[in-house]
Amino acid sequence: MWVVAACLWVQGLLVRSPDLLQRYRWTRQRSMQACEMLHVDDYGLQAAPFVSPPKWHLAHTSWFFETFLLEPFLTKYRAFNAQYSLLFNSYYNGIGEQYARSQRCLLSRPTIDEVVMYREHVDAAMVGLLEAVDHPQRLQVLSRTRLGLEHEQQHQELFYTDLKYSLFANPLLPAYSDAASPESTTVPLLQQQRWCEYTGGLVVLGVDPQAEGFAFDNERPAARVYLEPFQLSNRLVTNAEYQDFVDDGGYQTPRHWLADGWAVAQEARWHGPLYWLQRDGELLEFTLCGLRKRNPDAPVCHLSGYEADAYANWASARLPTEFEWEHAALQQEFVATEFDPQVLHPRIASTRDALVQLYSDCWQWTGSAYRPYSGFTAGDGAIGEYNGKFMANQWVLRGGSCVSQTGHVRPTYRNFFYPRDRWQFSGLRLARES
Amino acid sequence: MWVVAACLWVQGLLVRSPDLLQRYRWTRQRSMQACEMLHVDDYGLQAAPFVSPPKWHLAHTSWFFETFLLEPFLTKYRAFNAQYSLLFNSYYNGIGEQYARSQRCLLSRPTIDEVVMYREHVDAAMVGLLEAVDHPQRLQVLSRTRLGLEHEQQHQELFYTDLKYSLFANPLLPAYSDAASPESTTVPLLQQQRWCEYTGGLVVLGVDPQAEGFAFDNERPAARVYLEPFQLSNRLVTNAEYQDFVDDGGYQTPRHWLADGWAVAQEARWHGPLYWLQRDGELLEFTLCGLRKRNPDAPVCHLSGYEADAYANWASARLPTEFEWEHAALQQEFVATEFDPQVLHPRIASTRDALVQLYSDCWQWTGSAYRPYSGFTAGDGAIGEYNGKFMANQWVLRGGSCVSQTGHVRPTYRNFFYPRDRWQFSGLRLARES
Amino acid sequence: MWVVAACLWVQGLLVRSPDLLQRYRWTRQRSMQACEMLHVDDYGLQAAPFVSPPKWHLAHTSWFFETFLLEPFLTKYRAFNAQYSLLFNSYYNGIGEQYARSQRCLLSRPTIDEVVMYREHVDAAMVGLLEAVDHPQRLQVLSRTRLGLEHEQQHQELFYTDLKYSLFANPLLPAYSDAASPESTTVPLLQQQRWCEYTGGLVVLGVDPQAEGFAFDNERPAARVYLEPFQLSNRLVTNAEYQDFVDDGGYQTPRHWLADGWAVAQEARWHGPLYWLQRDGELLEFTLCGLRKRNPDAPVCHLSGYEADAYANWASARLPTEFEWEHAALQQEFVATEFDPQVLHPRIASTRDALVQLYSDCWQWTGSAYRPYSGFTAGDGAIGEYNGKFMANQWVLRGGSCVSQTGHVRPTYRNFFYPRDRWQFSGLRLARES
Amino acid sequence: MWVVAACLWVQGLLVRSPDLLQRYRWTRQRSMQACEMLHVDDYGLQAAPFVSPPKWHLAHTSWFFETFLLEPFLTKYRAFNAQYSLLFNSYYNGIGEQYARSQRCLLSRPTIDEVVMYREHVDAAMVGLLEAVDHPQRLQVLSRTRLGLEHEQQHQELFYTDLKYSLFANPLLPAYSDAASPESTTVPLLQQQRWCEYTGGLVVLGVDPQAEGFAFDNERPAARVYLEPFQLSNRLVTNAEYQDFVDDGGYQTPRHWLADGWAVAQEARWHGPLYWLQRDGELLEFTLCGLRKRNPDAPVCHLSGYEADAYANWASARLPTEFEWEHAALQQEFVATEFDPQVLHPRIASTRDALVQLYSDCWQWTGSAYRPYSGFTAGDGAIGEYNGKFMANQWVLRGGSCVSQTGHVRPTYRNFFYPRDRWQFSGLRLARES
Repeated sequence: MWVVAACLWVQGLLVRSPDLLQRYRWTRQRSMQACEMLHVDDYGLQAAPFVSPPKWHLAHTSWFFETFLLEPFLTKYRAFNAQYSLLFNSYYNGIGEQYARSQRCLLSRPTIDEVVMYREHVDAAMVGLLEAVDHPQRLQVLSRTRLGLEHEQQHQELFYTDLKYSLFANPLLPAYSDAASPESTTVPLLQQQRWCEYTGGLVVLGVDPQAEGFAFDNERPAARVYLEPFQLSNRLVTNAEYQDFVDDGGYQTPRHWLADGWAVAQEARWHGPLYWLQRDGELLEFTLCGLRKRNPDAPVCHLSGYEADAYANWASARLPTEFEWEHAALQQEFVATEFDPQVLHPRIASTRDALVQLYSDCWQWTGSAYRPYSGFTAGDGAIGEYNGKFMANQWVLRGGSCVSQTGHVRPTYRNFFYPRDRWQFSGLRLARES
Repeated sequence: MWVVAACLWVQGLLVRSPDLLQRYRWTRQRSMQACEMLHVDDYGLQAAPFVSPPKWHLAHTSWFFETFLLEPFLTKYRAFNAQYSLLFNSYYNGIGEQYARSQRCLLSRPTIDEVVMYREHVDAAMVGLLEAVDHPQRLQVLSRTRLGLEHEQQHQELFYTDLKYSLFANPLLPAYSDAASPESTTVPLLQQQRWCEYTGGLVVLGVDPQAEGFAFDNERPAARVYLEPFQLSNRLVTNAEYQDFVDDGGYQTPRHWLADGWAVAQEARWHGPLYWLQRDGELLEFTLCGLRKRNPDAPVCHLSGYEADAYANWASARLPTEFEWEHAALQQEFVATEFDPQVLHPRIASTRDALVQLYSDCWQWTGSAYRPYSGFTAGDGAIGEYNGKFMANQWVLRGGSCVSQTGHVRPTYRNFFYPRDRWQFSGLRLARES
Repeated sequence: MWVVAACLWVQGLLVRSPDLLQRYRWTRQRSMQACEMLHVDDYGLQAAPFVSPPKWHLAHTSWFFETFLLEPFLTKYRAFNAQYSLLFNSYYNGIGEQYARSQRCLLSRPTIDEVVMYREHVDAAMVGLLEAVDHPQRLQVLSRTRLGLEHEQQHQELFYTDLKYSLFANPLLPAYSDAASPESTTVPLLQQQRWCEYTGGLVVLGVDPQAEGFAFDNERPAARVYLEPFQLSNRLVTNAEYQDFVDDGGYQTPRHWLADGWAVAQEARWHGPLYWLQRDGELLEFTLCGLRKRNPDAPVCHLSGYEADAYANWASARLPTEFEWEHAALQQEFVATEFDPQVLHPRIASTRDALVQLYSDCWQWTGSAYRPYSGFTAGDGAIGEYNGKFMANQWVLRGGSCVSQTGHVRPTYRNFFYPRDRWQFSGLRLARES
Repeated sequence: MWVVAACLWVQGLLVRSPDLLQRYRWTRQRSMQACEMLHVDDYGLQAAPFVSPPKWHLAHTSWFFETFLLEPFLTKYRAFNAQYSLLFNSYYNGIGEQYARSQRCLLSRPTIDEVVMYREHVDAAMVGLLEAVDHPQRLQVLSRTRLGLEHEQQHQELFYTDLKYSLFANPLLPAYSDAASPESTTVPLLQQQRWCEYTGGLVVLGVDPQAEGFAFDNERPAARVYLEPFQLSNRLVTNAEYQDFVDDGGYQTPRHWLADGWAVAQEARWHGPLYWLQRDGELLEFTLCGLRKRNPDAPVCHLSGYEADAYANWASARLPTEFEWEHAALQQEFVATEFDPQVLHPRIASTRDALVQLYSDCWQWTGSAYRPYSGFTAGDGAIGEYNGKFMANQWVLRGGSCVSQTGHVRPTYRNFFYPRDRWQFSGLRLARES
């Protein structure tokens, strides 16, 4: 059971709760900081059922602490507002009914001021709980708090991707940030594409239940997997490379596509990645800093899994499996760039590592369906709904992105989306048989 | 041609433009006043494609003056923002493309502050235009300005009905106003239901092209209509009477319903009027002042045309035609209660007039399809799209409601909605054969 | 009450029941004759929810006699199969549940052989009922039998229009009949378009309850209507004239269209009438005799009401009201061409009557919404559902078509379809103000 | 490349083409024999887009031989009808456009008689081709012919499952066959449920490219897979066991379900397996022999993957992976019961093998997403669309069913359907960790 595992881990690492308290404060603050550049009009924006408004993210992450920490573990806790249990429950049937996901934009009340008060109410109680060093369920409190913080970091990433999607629905194409254009902040040096070779064999992947450090339940338990020899591209596919696919009729040629992908592409009339635009012959891209010239050397991003797969077929390659990816990533030192709110766009490959752009530019679609590892068990109660019930019809993405939060990603991390989704910073690293 | 007619009318009545300028200022101010009770979070609310957010109403009514007055008639006018032409065009194909109606909630930009500046920009220019007494197209300027003000009053009514609909989607059921509960502001004296008798014959209805006073094109020209003798109920159907229909299985008995109405009622799972709720056995009603006890003597409202028709069948009566209604209304002095922002709900019948509750409580569904009068012609250019192109599939409602603005309604006024619509203050007055 | 009226009429005309018996046999036989040219594979064809398979028409018309005549009036009648009550009930809630309309193609059983046996079973019983001259409810039996026969004739017309629609879904474009091409069977002489003048005034339209001859309830009671002076085109709009509208960008110009019609035309991607095709530059038309060259002089048909209305606007004219049409039609002798299974397509105007092509070529869209006449009452019980419950959202068509059955149409006849429907032989006769 | 592999195999096994010719005749005949019990009315039945009418199956399987054998390899072949290339192409974009899948029921023409002639035309040409022993591409002809026969056997299975689905849409619940009720043809002896133990390890699964015997491309190449120890149930889950799940509120408890499965179950209002009915308290099941009493000891079938997964969760077990299934199946001798048109329903477990009901009762859902094996390559040209493009969003089923054709299944066979599909004879064998 991962909950037990998490507790063991907590014992090893987090005996000193001040560390966690500090992490709690820092993480919670980050959510508010991300909102500083919003206009008050933006808090309710929701351009599709699969994205959430900024205000909802602020409230839901607080609801998580209230529901899974304060309600069960803080004896005298009084809910800020009993109706929030319905409003800000995302999908936990074990907790109760949920307000319709597609209508989160309709919650003009509570107002943003009330939501901020809600956050403060929860934070005050959480500090009390974390400072109660003799709490009888101390280990579970610490373990769940850590889960809550990882959860909040996931929503911090969604804050950016959801907002980008919603702003794009406005013909004014408003910018979230006035940071300098992404391309100018990076070294315009393109590393040559190279194939890195891996011999495979019987390898162990995933996270051992006794391992230190945080991991989600879906990364457990560690499992033995046999890999045939394979090759992986040193860097991500670039805008220029993807443009070649487009120019070669990629979106008009069903032969490259999975049947379901072709159907989606036709129905949704896809002609290129989500945020690509062309005006007066100029190749542009919508970013969180507004509409910009598309940098040919930057990684292509906002691809669906279907597009990534079609590109790979066209390029006589394929998507890596999630096991190949993890095995390759483990061969080199783990280095993730810190999240930088001034750089809200993937960077150009600029180092000489074997594999570059692993964790801090684009999530990388794999060819692996999101399914449980052998021996996986979901936690008890509503919290068991965190990951397990989504293990169907989605594909695994590995790595991390330019909006992944500092300290959040690692080689074993399994992100997952439907193959038709493309509003994440999702790109593509090619693989092929040796 | 009504445009000509309007000009003639302007000559008769509005030689003194100061009157119109005053009316302009007063009407424009009313739109802003209605927003004073909003939270800033509410400005983008839109719970269905057929309602618009408050911010959009504020901008669109300004767009109307900009597009139909300032652009054509004020030589040096500079648009506040060229892109607003797309964003705030409701449905005028003659002007250009329109931003999708269902996505108005996605316009977080312009911000509300910018929209207020837009209004001020337009107002300043409009004042200049109205004060230019020697403008070569003076008559058309005055006539169109008046149309723009009537248009704004229509949106002021929609502001209330749209907002009510959108607030209702929130499980918190927030109140727009903290005014005293509607029922307590009215005299709780129910006038007895009585049938008023009309002999009919060949009558003239509608508005003569040469008539003074404002009228929309759809009220013109005056037409001769033959009416058989008929009876009209002195007052509107009440909540208590409608409850009898519900209790008698009205929503389970297809026999009472038009086939299309029955299909809609099944699909949408209607069990009563739009805002009726029942909690712990108590009969409640959502109002702009929040959830309130349902007053049995108040007029039933927020009915679709289908429900109104089904009720009438059940009651062995029928809906009046729009001609019967107008003919009867013309038999007595025109008296409409001034709009009162403290009373945002229909009032109980409390006078002894032949026909009560004509103009200031609920719009009254008629059995007449919304079609042009014999000899109707739409205006030239985009402004001709104002009414004419909607003359299919909708039904006429007559009268006015508790949120109709002061001076806006009259006996010849033709309101129109699809028979499935029920978010207006729409109620029911019975008719039958003599 | 029309039922009473029908009985009175029966007294006047049908004292000799042998006439009705003969009419019964003749009409029932016609349904079978129309099927002679079918392949057995065609009996289940249904290309849209709004059309029915040939087999279903054969069964439903029998069900009508079984349900409304044999069950109530023939004491010892035994149903052929108790489950048919569900399967072949079209829309009579008063009788019970109905099998889903869109799934009629799924009734491979009963087989066509069983349905023919069902027809014979019903016919044998009906003959017995009609021969029982001393039946206590003799008048109602005769009256309802006549209704059943008119009902069957309506389905005989639908047999052709539904089949045409379903065959058109097959890329082979199969012909129902190998009759000579329609155009070659008609005199290729085009009568010039002329406006016929009518002075209007207070006129009486519809059918008097005491009148002899059959009429549906929706034609009753006779009503006084005031008509302004108007003009009506002597003939129907031709293919050539409609082609001018298409060539002038009619389908790309929203200005001509009702808003709802424009929306439908865009969504359904209409570019011309339903069965118009163009191949290798040749103007073609799908007919019940297969794909044929389009005759420029033949009436345009298979128009929706929206297209008819848009054409009229483009032509600076309008649709006639149903009252104008009826008043004009009554000014000249009633002559309808007999139904001829060799001519399943509208004929070219070839006579010199004031108004030509009234009853035997294309139904003519009017601008009148389908609503009850003043004083209309639906019959008691399930049979009251025949017409009344459809009096919303549909438009009236007047006249008759090339597949209307002999003896079925008359000047007061009110046909009705949704304005988006275009699978009937529906065309257009222009009107305008005098 | 599997095409090469298939040729090699052909060399080994099929040097004597008379064997293949005999197999061709026998297989083609089986398709016709299965239709003998149909009424002519049944040939066009199609109750959902995902099923095909019997007539279409007959034509499409012939189209396959025409398109992939006769057109490319028989020099003087003349197509029976050039338009059939469009009509009977299922999904091969490489061949050309396809007639809409959901409209196959609309092809009343060609008639069934013409389709039989089409089959004979193709058969005559195929016999000629197969008898041309000195054809320059002899090996490819033989290899593709074998593929065409396996393809036809797949459609023979679909013939039964599609037909069952379509007949079920008819309230008469017609029987395809009048064979004795399935339950009475089997020994009513229930084998006790037992867990069979497997130690796993590094195993080789799939088909070696050099292997003799036919296999589809998706079974290739053989791959090394590491399996943890596991247990597999000796027999399929029975109706009685599944009823316990239903009775325990299985369909009302989201905890047991994958999120997507729960959404589908709610939307489609599932309350039990597809063909379960209850009338007057009796537990019934629709079968190809009509409505029958449900045998509690027979395997539950017509489950979606979601239901199978939910049941397994409820039972504290899980679905096997496809690799576990294959590995276990290979541990015992391969025995599949011959297809028997008298037994169109899964049989009760009645032998004492370690694993029973492997190949001839119900397909067994696995927890494996349908993805290519490491090293998979699709064939060249349109035939490469056979399997590869469907490797997304579907789940693998293993084994075979009571309507799988004689000689068609084997331990490595990978069947695949969407997890929401349940019209196949799909059941469930439990697995768990050791």
